[in-house]
Amino acid sequence: MTERTLKDKTAIVGIATTDLARDGGRTEYSLACEAVTRAVEDAGLEMADIDGIVKDISDGIDPMYLQKAVGIDNAQYCSDSHWGTSALMTGATAIAAGICNAVVYYRCLNGGSGRRAGNDFRAAREMQDEGLDLLRYDFYSPFGLLTPDGLAAMTARRYLHVHGIDADQVGWIPVVASEYAAKNPDAVFFDEAIGLDDYTRSALRVDPLRDLDCAPGVDGGLAIVLTRADRAKSLRQKAAVVMGVAQGTSTEGELLSNYSRPDIAALPEVRLMGEELFRVAGIDRGDINVAQLDDRYAPYVAMQLEELGFCERGSGVAFCEKGERIRVDGDLPLNTGGGFLGGGFTYGLNVIEAVRQIRGTSSSQVEDAEISLVVSGAGGPADGLILRRD
Amino acid sequence: MTERTLKDKTAIVGIATTDLARDGGRTEYSLACEAVTRAVEDAGLEMADIDGIVKDISDGIDPMYLQKAVGIDNAQYCSDSHWGTSALMTGATAIAAGICNAVVYYRCLNGGSGRRAGNDFRAAREMQDEGLDLLRYDFYSPFGLLTPDGLAAMTARRYLHVHGIDADQVGWIPVVASEYAAKNPDAVFFDEAIGLDDYTRSALRVDPLRDLDCAPGVDGGLAIVLTRADRAKSLRQKAAVVMGVAQGTSTEGELLSNYSRPDIAALPEVRLMGEELFRVAGIDRGDINVAQLDDRYAPYVAMQLEELGFCERGSGVAFCEKGERIRVDGDLPLNTGGGFLGGGFTYGLNVIEAVRQIRGTSSSQVEDAEISLVVSGAGGPADGLILRRD
Repeated sequence: MTERTLKDKTAIVGIATTDLARDGGRTEYSLACEAVTRAVEDAGLEMADIDGIVKDISDGIDPMYLQKAVGIDNAQYCSDSHWGTSALMTGATAIAAGICNAVVYYRCLNGGSGRRAGNDFRAAREMQDEGLDLLRYDFYSPFGLLTPDGLAAMTARRYLHVHGIDADQVGWIPVVASEYAAKNPDAVFFDEAIGLDDYTRSALRVDPLRDLDCAPGVDGGLAIVLTRADRAKSLRQKAAVVMGVAQGTSTEGELLSNYSRPDIAALPEVRLMGEELFRVAGIDRGDINVAQLDDRYAPYVAMQLEELGFCERGSGVAFCEKGERIRVDGDLPLNTGGGFLGGGFTYGLNVIEAVRQIRGTSSSQVEDAEISLVVSGAGGPADGLILRRD
Repeated sequence: MTERTLKDKTAIVGIATTDLARDGGRTEYSLACEAVTRAVEDAGLEMADIDGIVKDISDGIDPMYLQKAVGIDNAQYCSDSHWGTSALMTGATAIAAGICNAVVYYRCLNGGSGRRAGNDFRAAREMQDEGLDLLRYDFYSPFGLLTPDGLAAMTARRYLHVHGIDADQVGWIPVVASEYAAKNPDAVFFDEAIGLDDYTRSALRVDPLRDLDCAPGVDGGLAIVLTRADRAKSLRQKAAVVMGVAQGTSTEGELLSNYSRPDIAALPEVRLMGEELFRVAGIDRGDINVAQLDDRYAPYVAMQLEELGFCERGSGVAFCEKGERIRVDGDLPLNTGGGFLGGGFTYGLNVIEAVRQIRGTSSSQVEDAEISLVVSGAGGPADGLILRRD
């Protein structure tokens, strides 16, 4: 495609999270309803203004049941997407195509106490039910490779090996995440910042991944309201205009177990998505003031920095070393709300922090942040947004 | 919305079904791959031309695994939708917004031998897992209301009662479906046409629904390729231009169990969708040359004729009586491939027949068919397309 049809057409005008907790004790249905209600209020819109609903397939509450509960009676566009926050692109597309005026995106996960996106290997299990012979789990599970953490560890090990990286240095990523999280009242997992020695004392979960490399699950809901950029100006909040939005996939793609590729220490979906994202937005890497990358697994943050073109191949861990470049006064303040490592693994939390940076309401606000990047889906189909001040 | 942004922007240029069978003995993964491969060939495109993938959430094969198998390596837009064929609207939106050049839609269901869309009540079960008190199945299942057929029968009974309709007259809908199916080599369920007496002898499944009122499941896959209307002209097949596409939802909507409404003998989602669909297309009911309505349950066909404005409230069964108006030389030839009653319940088969009418390749071709309507999702969120010759 040579067009940039999604550039500056839409804006995020409402955001909300419910209380986030290790064990919130609420139904996902109630989390979805609260988040949607509050995000629509945050935008200064009425429920009657919402004419589109988008979500991720891993969230169990059907748009139909959400409509019933919150009173959206005129949704003319409902869609699900897979992995990450790619449903936001679907919503932006519906608005850009003139189908919808205002779309709400929601997530609701009891990922701390119960079900967590990605843990159930839905697609793979369904394929196994079909009796296919050549499934990844037929090859992996007999050898004990059973969890997302294990699958990600294989990629992380290879990445560290190929580039001769000292595994301990990866610890700067959770260390800086803990500093941000300690300042963010919404972030559940660090009351205070940790040091690199805390990281190196953290238990090895699946070598080389330590407990502190792996984002914990969290219970909570969140919602995001998108509308037309021209309409956003008159609404309650400072709009975060969508400069670009993109998805990236790859032929040999799987979820985390991308071992059929010539180079398994790579995230080609992130690279393809990033190239398209920056092309659509029409800006360069140096224009980004603040970034939220996918830190479900800490080493993947380093790999994303490389695939997105912020540094050379193999130098992502060095980029984060000592935290100077990724703290709030560095060249690329990174995961400023504490990321998934500090806030819990729920796609969408990263988008909400990116919007807060544009609004100037982050708990670790980057001075004069004008352009804010967010990337989801590292280790699978990837997606991203570039937001800017209006 | 006052715009008609989806009018004439896209066209269906490729269609394919696998062999359809009561028990096909194949995996859904293999069905999906064959259907997609053949639909892309039918369009005269290469797999490298496909940059978007859309599907229904009830189909188990993740787009990622489809990509892996058939070699789509540049999909920049993947999305799922709920119920019916609403994913086609998502695909059309992506093309209209300039995100994609060519999108493939696929379905793959072993609905005859195994899993069937809608039978597992996924969303409701998940909500029950959440311990909600006010779920429909908590109220219905203790009284034996356990199946889609039972849920639909409640609506059908009320519909017949309110309008004083003789239940036997509904039989003209399966009778005419059997006539069409007998001519369609793809239709599995009628080798020859039945008569009204066959219908009245058919076993009552859930009063008033007889076996012949309920579309049987079928094993098979299908795929549909959409591209830009301007690009469609140069391709292999006669294009079916999308004049209009719409979704309709309603606040008190459920799947089939729509008993919380003032009028349970109605399909308000079909009405809302239909109004939008005809508005977008800019045509009137009388302009439709041939229609494929959702005949998962025969009485719902009559209700759709009313909700769509083809006849007065309560006169849909009379519209179909003796079959004169809905046979191939009638005012509104209906479900000309045999519908789901003749071909098996798989959303998408209806779209493929609508395209065949535009191409002039139906087994019951309507002479000079220029404009072809298709509606899916009766009894839940509804969606529809109006196609025209290029």
